[in-house]
Amino acid sequence: VRAGDDLPALIAAAAPDLRDGDVVVVAQKVVSKVEGRVRALAEVAPTEEALALASEFDKDPRLVQVVLDESAELVRAAQGVLICETRHGFVCANAGVDLSNTGGEGVAVLLPLDPDASARRIRASLATRGKSTPDSGVNFDRMRIGVVISDSFGRPWRLGVTDVAIGAAGVAVLEDWRGRPDAQGRELRVTEVAVADQLAAAADLVRAKDSGEPVVLVRGAERFVTEDDGPGAAALRRSRGLDLFR
Amino acid sequence: VRAGDDLPALIAAAAPDLRDGDVVVVAQKVVSKVEGRVRALAEVAPTEEALALASEFDKDPRLVQVVLDESAELVRAAQGVLICETRHGFVCANAGVDLSNTGGEGVAVLLPLDPDASARRIRASLATRGKSTPDSGVNFDRMRIGVVISDSFGRPWRLGVTDVAIGAAGVAVLEDWRGRPDAQGRELRVTEVAVADQLAAAADLVRAKDSGEPVVLVRGAERFVTEDDGPGAAALRRSRGLDLFR
Repeated sequence: VRAGDDLPALIAAAAPDLRDGDVVVVAQKVVSKVEGRVRALAEVAPTEEALALASEFDKDPRLVQVVLDESAELVRAAQGVLICETRHGFVCANAGVDLSNTGGEGVAVLLPLDPDASARRIRASLATRGKSTPDSGVNFDRMRIGVVISDSFGRPWRLGVTDVAIGAAGVAVLEDWRGRPDAQGRELRVTEVAVADQLAAAADLVRAKDSGEPVVLVRGAERFVTEDDGPGAAALRRSRGLDLFR
Repeated sequence: VRAGDDLPALIAAAAPDLRDGDVVVVAQKVVSKVEGRVRALAEVAPTEEALALASEFDKDPRLVQVVLDESAELVRAAQGVLICETRHGFVCANAGVDLSNTGGEGVAVLLPLDPDASARRIRASLATRGKSTPDSGVNFDRMRIGVVISDSFGRPWRLGVTDVAIGAAGVAVLEDWRGRPDAQGRELRVTEVAVADQLAAAADLVRAKDSGEPVVLVRGAERFVTEDDGPGAAALRRSRGLDLFR
């Protein structure tokens, strides 16, 4: 997959039986590649700050510079890890910048500029493919397809990464249970379920990190697929005012 | 489900086609109920600390006392939320203590004392059920069944809860990719994947919070099912020495 490739066309070709109510979980990296969100380290000139951090943490100063360029705030720098708030408001290691599976040596892949917009574009394109291929067996004039763009994030108190949604369209990203009763009629403790993150995590179970499979089709989750694009993964960000750990 | 009930027998009865390589994800609450891990608030005498916290956060002081009793450390108390490290080393709201879906008014359900041991017991019992019911169509003398005990945890920088594994047996809780190459032969950035947490999250997608469905059968994840019990969800705890946010 290269910059400018038609990602929805590639997904539709790989999933000819895509149907109304399906959710497509797309790895962030392939979205970034298509959108040209890469930087060649050879063209990066590190600042004093990047040089100092790189020296302290034994990292490539050019990579550190790319991470800083993608960050709104460096939240923690310790134990060889840079925990950043990205310009989108996500808190993750290295601001989501990655050197593995990038398709080239010395190439850093960045997060999409607006992952929710990326998800909306993929969704809009996939939605019309039922109509444009009447002989495919798809009976819908306009399919409702949920799209999640996923990335692997660490967690402060648990080891290992899990995939979360950094972009979404046509998916109920947060299922709201506030005020709803439990099976005994008592108000539920759990208020909101991060459905889009759970879809991303479920999708990650069926691929390996070295398999080069960027897209997973989730079937049976139609109760989370919405008519509208919805608020996207931006709705999953905890605002600074509610943040107890910074 | 009540204290002393035979939970594996209930699971086996509900899933007569359980087979080798299946993963059973069991909600923490039903495990706690079977194990009698409940406290009646009427029998709780709050301490000065609980009374002060309850007053500050407009909570029931008896519930706060139960939360403190379950906690090794109160990590944060702010915005009406008590973030605790449980005696097992999990960091979560209210030390996992819950008043909803408890089966009675004024009854708090606590986390199992040793959720990994609970998972091992369920696994051991389920493993022999292929043998004991020869007419069930199950062909295994000893089935390899993965067991995950799940609970809903919040995240410091994302809204909504996702289900995670607080107990596990017979599941590769962390998939280790350290040192393994990516599709281009470059070392992967991602080091360990929290498989057990992703199994818990996937399972949560197929039930509603008010449905009273405590167990989900995950089929197709046999590559994560192990011969041995393994280290359990204890392996997912980040040690204090690696904690950047306390």
